Amino acid sequence: MTQTDPKPTLGPASKERLRLWLRLLKASRTVEAQLRENLRTEFDTTLPRFDVMAALSRYDSGLKMSQLSGVLRVSNGNVTGIVDRLTEDGFIMRVAVPGDRRASLVRLTKRGREEFDRQAEAHENWIADMLGDFTAEEAADLAERFDRMDGEAPE
Amino acid sequence: MTQTDPKPTLGPASKERLRLWLRLLKASRTVEAQLRENLRTEFDTTLPRFDVMAALSRYDSGLKMSQLSGVLRVSNGNVTGIVDRLTEDGFIMRVAVPGDRRASLVRLTKRGREEFDRQAEAHENWIADMLGDFTAEEAADLAERFDRMDGEAPE
Repeated sequence: MTQTDPKPTLGPASKERLRLWLRLLKASRTVEAQLRENLRTEFDTTLPRFDVMAALSRYDSGLKMSQLSGVLRVSNGNVTGIVDRLTEDGFIMRVAVPGDRRASLVRLTKRGREEFDRQAEAHENWIADMLGDFTAEEAADLAERFDRMDGEAPE
Repeated sequence: MTQTDPKPTLGPASKERLRLWLRLLKASRTVEAQLRENLRTEFDTTLPRFDVMAALSRYDSGLKMSQLSGVLRVSNGNVTGIVDRLTEDGFIMRVAVPGDRRASLVRLTKRGREEFDRQAEAHENWIADMLGDFTAEEAADLAERFDRMDGEAPE
């Protein structure tokens, strides 16, 4: 435990890595549950709605439904329902695609953009609060390591 | 970025903490997807089946279905189907509860225990591989911090 382990598998590190994985999973579920709760009570919205608006906020000219589903990794059917509701609420709109009569793009309305900006600022503060144990430097270092780990996953 | 930030919210740390959260979420989804894939190809099983057997492996004398659902945080209906299949496969069995004719306990069979031990060892090695970037000490330290963070989540 006090020495580093050069081997990726077996050895004393594997128990600690397993424990890290279980804690990590639990912490991420706790954070996600808290985000859902905060979005509900403070903005009367849901995490999938927030995710859809977050995706659209990165594409000023809009996204096709298929592109939006791809970005979100959820089924098209689910996204359609969420988009319908957000459209009714006046937060997003469908716009025609020039040269393709069957396709349309969805994008944030001005009101949707303003609403999302408020939600995103609150979301950032909630996360900063929940991850308050990590300094900026530690967070940046760890983010980098998880990012690297992600790319290194076998196959 | 190079100085620590005593405030939990706002300030330069919040962007880094948000980035850490997004990376963490992505990494945990990647690890989970890889676990599902490995369980399927190497043991012809699924993560929910593995989770049920893992829960039962901690209770030698068995669990009531309601206790099992509680441990797993999934609906009773889902657990019932998984338990039925694992029973058909000979990995778990139902045993009567003395003094309660309507209730029964489920627990691993000898064969189920042996199969789970093999799966758990492989699972630990997969995790050790995927988290191979972290030394035993780093993993232990981080696990501790995520654990603390978990308990500190507001409300």
